[in-house]
Amino acid sequence: MNLAPLVPHDDHIEVIDQTRLPFVLATLALRTLEDCAQGIETMQVRGAPLIGATAAFGVALAMAGDAGDAALEAALARLARTRPTAVNLHWALARMASRLRPLAASTRAAAAWAEARAIHDEDIAANHALGEHGARLIAERAATLGRPLRVMTHCNAGALATCGWGTALAPVYVAHAAGIAVEVWVSETRPRNQGLLTAWELGRAGVPHALIADNAAGHLMRQGEVDLVITGADRIAANGDTANKVGTYLKALAAREHQVPFYIAAPTSTIDATCPDGAAIPIEARSAAEVQVVHGVDGAGKPAQVTIFAGRCANPAFDVTPAALISGIFTERGLYPSTHITEALA
Amino acid sequence: MNLAPLVPHDDHIEVIDQTRLPFVLATLALRTLEDCAQGIETMQVRGAPLIGATAAFGVALAMAGDAGDAALEAALARLARTRPTAVNLHWALARMASRLRPLAASTRAAAAWAEARAIHDEDIAANHALGEHGARLIAERAATLGRPLRVMTHCNAGALATCGWGTALAPVYVAHAAGIAVEVWVSETRPRNQGLLTAWELGRAGVPHALIADNAAGHLMRQGEVDLVITGADRIAANGDTANKVGTYLKALAAREHQVPFYIAAPTSTIDATCPDGAAIPIEARSAAEVQVVHGVDGAGKPAQVTIFAGRCANPAFDVTPAALISGIFTERGLYPSTHITEALA
Repeated sequence: MNLAPLVPHDDHIEVIDQTRLPFVLATLALRTLEDCAQGIETMQVRGAPLIGATAAFGVALAMAGDAGDAALEAALARLARTRPTAVNLHWALARMASRLRPLAASTRAAAAWAEARAIHDEDIAANHALGEHGARLIAERAATLGRPLRVMTHCNAGALATCGWGTALAPVYVAHAAGIAVEVWVSETRPRNQGLLTAWELGRAGVPHALIADNAAGHLMRQGEVDLVITGADRIAANGDTANKVGTYLKALAAREHQVPFYIAAPTSTIDATCPDGAAIPIEARSAAEVQVVHGVDGAGKPAQVTIFAGRCANPAFDVTPAALISGIFTERGLYPSTHITEALA
Repeated sequence: MNLAPLVPHDDHIEVIDQTRLPFVLATLALRTLEDCAQGIETMQVRGAPLIGATAAFGVALAMAGDAGDAALEAALARLARTRPTAVNLHWALARMASRLRPLAASTRAAAAWAEARAIHDEDIAANHALGEHGARLIAERAATLGRPLRVMTHCNAGALATCGWGTALAPVYVAHAAGIAVEVWVSETRPRNQGLLTAWELGRAGVPHALIADNAAGHLMRQGEVDLVITGADRIAANGDTANKVGTYLKALAAREHQVPFYIAAPTSTIDATCPDGAAIPIEARSAAEVQVVHGVDGAGKPAQVTIFAGRCANPAFDVTPAALISGIFTERGLYPSTHITEALA
């Protein structure tokens, strides 16, 4: 796994523009606070852990220009407004704030860059560690099957959603690298079709996979075609309720109905101990255009879009899966019962 | 409700080409058995009741050319192969067969046309009757609300899916015409986006509605935004298990979880008393292209398509909702408990 969606350079960060994937692989240089904030808002940069790291570099880039108290607070406030649901953003900003506020302005720029790099590097390490924990479960379950283990995932919680390795896909990558036969059901994830990102990176890594319409998840589970569901998370409340990309909850309900284990994989930076339960997690409503317009390529292979609808839409971007539907949560510190997830912070 | 997706003429039938809706409203003349069979296969004609009526006219058109025994059996066999899941097709063919087989070849052409017309006219009457039964339930529930009643549906079980009025939408149309404030959550219904047909016909009828990604259904129910779910059916087994467009089952699971009543609306021609349960219903696997290619309009408003994916897909077209998840089934004869649906045939 050498997919690096965020590469720190000396005075900027280079990110993959995820609004153009999987049709075009292009990178963007984010050189300013505002570049980073807008990159997060427009979802050029997406995925809870990657948003957190990008926000940290956004603070660092702001400090490189003006490291005064007012500039620091303005940078933190600007970035906090970008996306409401993923908590890694707020976790990263809080970490930058507590590192930088006590410092003299003259030392902030260097410290900010170092702290952002640490967040970046720690994310890669955390994801690899949780991948190893998850891969042990995959190996155990695969051992009893005379065929490849079939994992279903939702959205993209792969390398692209993080600084490396991914969350939900990290166990898959680690297991695949260890020679365990694993296949992935990739849910399209309307409206933004992040499943296409998942299929793209699984393809690069040589992991067998098939794309399905989100609607097909229940049927496949009923037919015994799914051995395990693993998704990422945007925010895990103290009681284990988990916000993730809209549609996750429907899969969790179907998984319970068919005794398919349903796991969440997320670094501990996704846990919000201050949030008592799912009802307290703000759910972002995004624009109707995401439902109305579909991106792809035309007959000549050129990026193109079609409008499928011009009327009123509702577009909640996330939903909450109650802790009771979650078989366990993989973090870099191991596997925790959803209802005891705050122990991962101890 | 004056939307007539199938108009019988003297020597052909005129149908709306539903593969071009909602972007282009165009009709097709089906003049031969093969026209009808291919129209059903390619989903120019779709919706379980409309498929049944179109198949009946397909037999009649065949008889107009050659009304011999061999031609009759060949026509029945050709049409039976078109779609495996919807039972109305087989119901209509069986009805045509038992009407025509005993007749002399010389009288078959006229009898076939009359029988197909009867199937057509009875479908409209049945749907209107079930609409009146369903509208009583809507009126009852709406009476206790200080706001419009919110119905969620899936796929298109509207006028376009039938010879008129629709199945799931018939209660909505009857209630709306009676002045009851009702709004519809229209689920996109990937991969073929029949929700766009539903939005289109609701818009024509002046019924307020909003389009959602299929993934949003669970979140909306959890938020208390759905008062009632009504969908159509492609085949209802003797025990009440119901096959309908893939994704229906996920909505039924979420509806049970949130105590949202989940109803099926279908004429009795959708009941297959010879099929013991859902496991015996064949589920059609359709082509990967339906998942891979999305139809819409380009920037100039011209029909266009984009390819979103080129890899492997799985595309089951239907799923089965167990009888236990179904609050009741509206037929032209009234509302039946799902587990007693065969009483509607008595």
